[in-house]
Amino acid sequence: MSNEYKNILVAIDLSEDSRKVLLQAKEIAARNQHAKLSVVHTLEPLGFAYGGDIPMDLTSIQDQLDSHARTRLKELLEGIDIPEENQHVLVGMPDTETHRLANEQNIDLIVVGSNGRHGFQLLLGSVSSGVLHGAPCDVLAVRVGKKS
Amino acid sequence: MSNEYKNILVAIDLSEDSRKVLLQAKEIAARNQHAKLSVVHTLEPLGFAYGGDIPMDLTSIQDQLDSHARTRLKELLEGIDIPEENQHVLVGMPDTETHRLANEQNIDLIVVGSNGRHGFQLLLGSVSSGVLHGAPCDVLAVRVGKKS
Repeated sequence: MSNEYKNILVAIDLSEDSRKVLLQAKEIAARNQHAKLSVVHTLEPLGFAYGGDIPMDLTSIQDQLDSHARTRLKELLEGIDIPEENQHVLVGMPDTETHRLANEQNIDLIVVGSNGRHGFQLLLGSVSSGVLHGAPCDVLAVRVGKKS
Repeated sequence: MSNEYKNILVAIDLSEDSRKVLLQAKEIAARNQHAKLSVVHTLEPLGFAYGGDIPMDLTSIQDQLDSHARTRLKELLEGIDIPEENQHVLVGMPDTETHRLANEQNIDLIVVGSNGRHGFQLLLGSVSSGVLHGAPCDVLAVRVGKKS
């Protein structure tokens, strides 16, 4: 029996700290016989934040946000070899989408960031404590934002 | 720069599930150039649970609980090579003691169990969600109790 991780998903909020989480995940993948590495960023739907009752079409704004997120993701992934098809930018609730993706893709380790100070409540913005609750697999919280 | 884990602490509640957490931690230590592996179990002080106001000496009972915990720990550690001096049975609040030990020993990864269903609230009994909050280092939650 081997407990090596074969399929690792990094859930990030695209902040500067995300880079540290990605690099840590990259090293872990390398130590696990080069496990498959995927990354997910989940955009919360625009309408949701306003109760879904806005008298205008938000589609084009959502598209712009999506495009902006993909550009930012590319920057953060510099030097980290994750094929395009393993880069997921989703729209929805971050926890739910991350769990759904983890189930769909048979992920065995989810990597997230934690600032350590206020626990997972403030965990890299949108990647909240909920990623831990109900996760279908192991979850690694990488400590970010510490003085070193 | 290497982000390998050099000093891993496993926090367990001595339940059956603890064995799975220990085995996972053992494999992770092996993959990280045989990082140092330590284990901690924290007994909550007897008096604490009763408000500290019991008209009898609980010392001998606490000693018995301590001894029982060490015996149980030995059973769980069968085939897992952790030197006696790295086996810690402490008395106090599990979260606080685990963090204190992690700081003292320059731990870079704490490994705990998570049942995944109710998140870390029910995480291996005494090893509560608090271990994650305020942890001085990375925290890995190993999924236990899943059907597989």
